[in-house]
Amino acid sequence: MSNFGGYRLRVVNPYRVAFQEARSAVGATALLKNAEEFKTVADAVSDCSLVVGTTAVRNRTLQHPLKKLNECGSEIHGRLKFGRVALLFGSEKIGLTNDDFNFCHWLLTIPTQEQNISMNLGQAVAVCLYELAREDSLTGKAASPKPETDFEDKPATAGEVEEIVACLLESLQISQYVKPNTDEFFEKKVRHLMRRLDIRAVDANVLLGMVRKIRWKLRQQSKR
Amino acid sequence: MSNFGGYRLRVVNPYRVAFQEARSAVGATALLKNAEEFKTVADAVSDCSLVVGTTAVRNRTLQHPLKKLNECGSEIHGRLKFGRVALLFGSEKIGLTNDDFNFCHWLLTIPTQEQNISMNLGQAVAVCLYELAREDSLTGKAASPKPETDFEDKPATAGEVEEIVACLLESLQISQYVKPNTDEFFEKKVRHLMRRLDIRAVDANVLLGMVRKIRWKLRQQSKR
Repeated sequence: MSNFGGYRLRVVNPYRVAFQEARSAVGATALLKNAEEFKTVADAVSDCSLVVGTTAVRNRTLQHPLKKLNECGSEIHGRLKFGRVALLFGSEKIGLTNDDFNFCHWLLTIPTQEQNISMNLGQAVAVCLYELAREDSLTGKAASPKPETDFEDKPATAGEVEEIVACLLESLQISQYVKPNTDEFFEKKVRHLMRRLDIRAVDANVLLGMVRKIRWKLRQQSKR
Repeated sequence: MSNFGGYRLRVVNPYRVAFQEARSAVGATALLKNAEEFKTVADAVSDCSLVVGTTAVRNRTLQHPLKKLNECGSEIHGRLKFGRVALLFGSEKIGLTNDDFNFCHWLLTIPTQEQNISMNLGQAVAVCLYELAREDSLTGKAASPKPETDFEDKPATAGEVEEIVACLLESLQISQYVKPNTDEFFEKKVRHLMRRLDIRAVDANVLLGMVRKIRWKLRQQSKR
């Protein structure tokens, strides 16, 4: 990470012993010391306006757009102008789960030989950040993000979208739109849908106000 | 290596215990099992027509041309058409030594942030091979080398050049061209010079014949 200008490490629910005893590679002590811990993926990406999951694909049926690493640099750099971008990596053994994918806008894969598509986690991170720094160095830009927060076109953060999702889901439950025992599947559908919308920050604000009001009304009614 | 189509691992003078007990990552058992061991760098690269050293540069004064990884893909691919190319990596701790550099035609560096130029060895290898496979996938070629051995323009192998160097050095010693106690420095100079010449295979054959003959004559004379 520190070789290629990624300075914000966030870990979700790490194995405590391994994480506390982890020692940094040469030159990255501060990076590891400043790593932030989160209980859930949702929390970890809440201030990011783009969440990109990483996967080796295998035989999975994906419900997300999938892009090759060497073809998505400019899109990620474009997003970095407006806010934070999360690159989400799964565990060494099983990678990201389908649940993790629900918090991603799209997925990225590193093109590999078909004979061996499974990469070492640290090497996968290095290759991804090298590619992003590469794109950057080609266009002469700095590698670190420079958010321009008051731009009209600024996309909503994952946290804002998730707030809308939460309000909407509660509203749909209270209003009995959701059938019993289908909650989890339905939650996923709603998350996908909201991310496909690619909501702007200004719109997110309005939408959240609306769905909050609806929920308030539904809560009031259900108390009666 | 196996993720990006590098199948020929050669190790120089490895720490025996570590090497024998090394266990492959997922999917690369055969690659590790087929790894070849050599006593010296010269032996390891003897059948390669291009030897590229890797370095993080630091404050070293380099006597070799230095190229950025993202700018040397096409040159390496061009060479792969005619023969083998060695990517030479140093140890995790100290990297390649100046002695190792003597066997390189030029050096390659991975562009990193100035704050941290020192890379993990495995990650450096992954990034280099990703870049070479990337170039390949862009131009639609296969990742594995396809040597065309009877091409007119075929460059000499490192082993052929080294044989010329050895004959030449002995000849120069016998003929007292080399001053006492300056042997090592002089050897380096000759190696550099010969690699700068970028000798074709057909020419190497002729040169070797010439220098062998000279050495034979000098040996004969010194016996008298």
